[in-house]
Amino acid sequence: MYRIGVDLGGTNIAAGIVDREYNIIAKGSTPTKADRPADEIIADMAWLCKKLCEDANIDISNIESIGVASPGVVDNENGMVLYANNLPFKNLPLAAKLRELTGVQTIKMANDANAAALGEAVAGAAKGARHSVMVTLGTGVGGGIIIDGKVFAGGNGAGAELGHIVIEHNGVPCSCGRRGCWESYSSATALIRMTKEAIEKANAEGRYTSMANAEKISGRTACDAMRAGDEVAKEVYDKYLSYLANGIASIINVFQPEVISLGGGISNEGQSLIDALEPLVRKEQYGGGIVKTADLRIAKLKNDAGIIGAAAL
Amino acid sequence: MYRIGVDLGGTNIAAGIVDREYNIIAKGSTPTKADRPADEIIADMAWLCKKLCEDANIDISNIESIGVASPGVVDNENGMVLYANNLPFKNLPLAAKLRELTGVQTIKMANDANAAALGEAVAGAAKGARHSVMVTLGTGVGGGIIIDGKVFAGGNGAGAELGHIVIEHNGVPCSCGRRGCWESYSSATALIRMTKEAIEKANAEGRYTSMANAEKISGRTACDAMRAGDEVAKEVYDKYLSYLANGIASIINVFQPEVISLGGGISNEGQSLIDALEPLVRKEQYGGGIVKTADLRIAKLKNDAGIIGAAAL
Repeated sequence: MYRIGVDLGGTNIAAGIVDREYNIIAKGSTPTKADRPADEIIADMAWLCKKLCEDANIDISNIESIGVASPGVVDNENGMVLYANNLPFKNLPLAAKLRELTGVQTIKMANDANAAALGEAVAGAAKGARHSVMVTLGTGVGGGIIIDGKVFAGGNGAGAELGHIVIEHNGVPCSCGRRGCWESYSSATALIRMTKEAIEKANAEGRYTSMANAEKISGRTACDAMRAGDEVAKEVYDKYLSYLANGIASIINVFQPEVISLGGGISNEGQSLIDALEPLVRKEQYGGGIVKTADLRIAKLKNDAGIIGAAAL
Repeated sequence: MYRIGVDLGGTNIAAGIVDREYNIIAKGSTPTKADRPADEIIADMAWLCKKLCEDANIDISNIESIGVASPGVVDNENGMVLYANNLPFKNLPLAAKLRELTGVQTIKMANDANAAALGEAVAGAAKGARHSVMVTLGTGVGGGIIIDGKVFAGGNGAGAELGHIVIEHNGVPCSCGRRGCWESYSSATALIRMTKEAIEKANAEGRYTSMANAEKISGRTACDAMRAGDEVAKEVYDKYLSYLANGIASIINVFQPEVISLGGGISNEGQSLIDALEPLVRKEQYGGGIVKTADLRIAKLKNDAGIIGAAAL
């Protein structure tokens, strides 16, 4: 028996067939074209599932379940996407429609960040852990919480918004309407903002920074410049790390997971990011010396996390 | 059949026999005398359990289980108190000792804040909710998390430290070693600090505040003065509420519980506290308008929460 995981994004619908050991044995994608009606998007999801079965020479009756990772607020119990910011989905009975179009009876759903966390838990950086948390450091800060091997999405399915814990009272305005959310200090977007601010400040003070010559500021600008010995860049990175470690320690104090895995663009810094975070997090966390606290790891599955996690739902 | 709940505190050991509907049918207490050896404290816990049975005319063989709410880090699976700040407990096999002394085979354990949250969930402000959170606003800020009717104490039992989420990066030093913890802004201790600071500032600015005449500053000083029309007190209380609402909204964004109940000294403000928090929390929370979000309530069981929660473990 096999399962299909569908990772529905604002740009692409990606899907894969996985076996019992969570190996992807067929994979494909098709553009989401998010501005068309929901029914057309779902029809393409179903088409992709069937096409993958053909490609892999598997009869769709051998597909045990289809799992869908969707952006937004997902109600798995009732098979609904209640709301998605970047898709034309509102109170959409996605599971029922996909069941009808594919003939696969078991359709599971989760928010994309939660599905990715489950992927890392079953086949990635947190494999073997009962309790884990995944933090995605990308355009925003996404959170996925695994408790006892299962996705914890909050009592009503709209929780696990770890990026929207306030870390700086009355701080930087966040897209969610609050001020000072962790996302506003630990996302790639935040690192870019901090980098730009530091360059402006350095220019105003007549202080040299190689970053002033960068054509385009990205999340890598400060990291690369720091490694090349740029002092202003080091200050930016240290400030960024201080917020990131602060939030991670708060997650440990509340969830005490076995593993926290870091994904998203910033996690491409790899082990050097973990090494820099370790002393900062350990200094702040609760329970060290009394209990075993969380291992910090870089997420492993990259873009496959959503597919594998969705399949594992 | 009956159960016993023991609420072990730094000052008193309180215990009660509860029936199936969580009514306390016998209750008593004895001083903890926390500076004596652990074995003597446990002997008194056992003595109190037996005495309550005698008082209620119940043979101890009719006691299904004893639950213990203990301060500190508790390992329920292995029946141990790993560490407690204010008791001489370190890696203490409390369950085994209490089993031996009472003859009751089933001994359950939880941290006191978690037990209180369970008490409110089974018989108090969150009765009927599957997912709830209790926040205790006392000397510190305690947290108890109930997921699917069960205590969630983190993967290793040392979690749910909701007071030790940082809410103000590099803020006020906290007893835990971090800076800017929620506890340092939303405990009764924090309100007292804010009150003293405001009085000093008002004095320095030659601004009148009735609070300057208070013999002793407590958590009630600012609340009472505000109600009597004191403007400085209103500013203190508004500032305190702003931090409290901020933290509550973060809890909603992560846990999306059905109910958040507020206990501890500050909760004696009652419904007026809830009314003041409501608009602040609703403005900041995630999911409002899409999903049903948490009801804010004052905890009901007061000092019985720990006993009832321990019995319900």
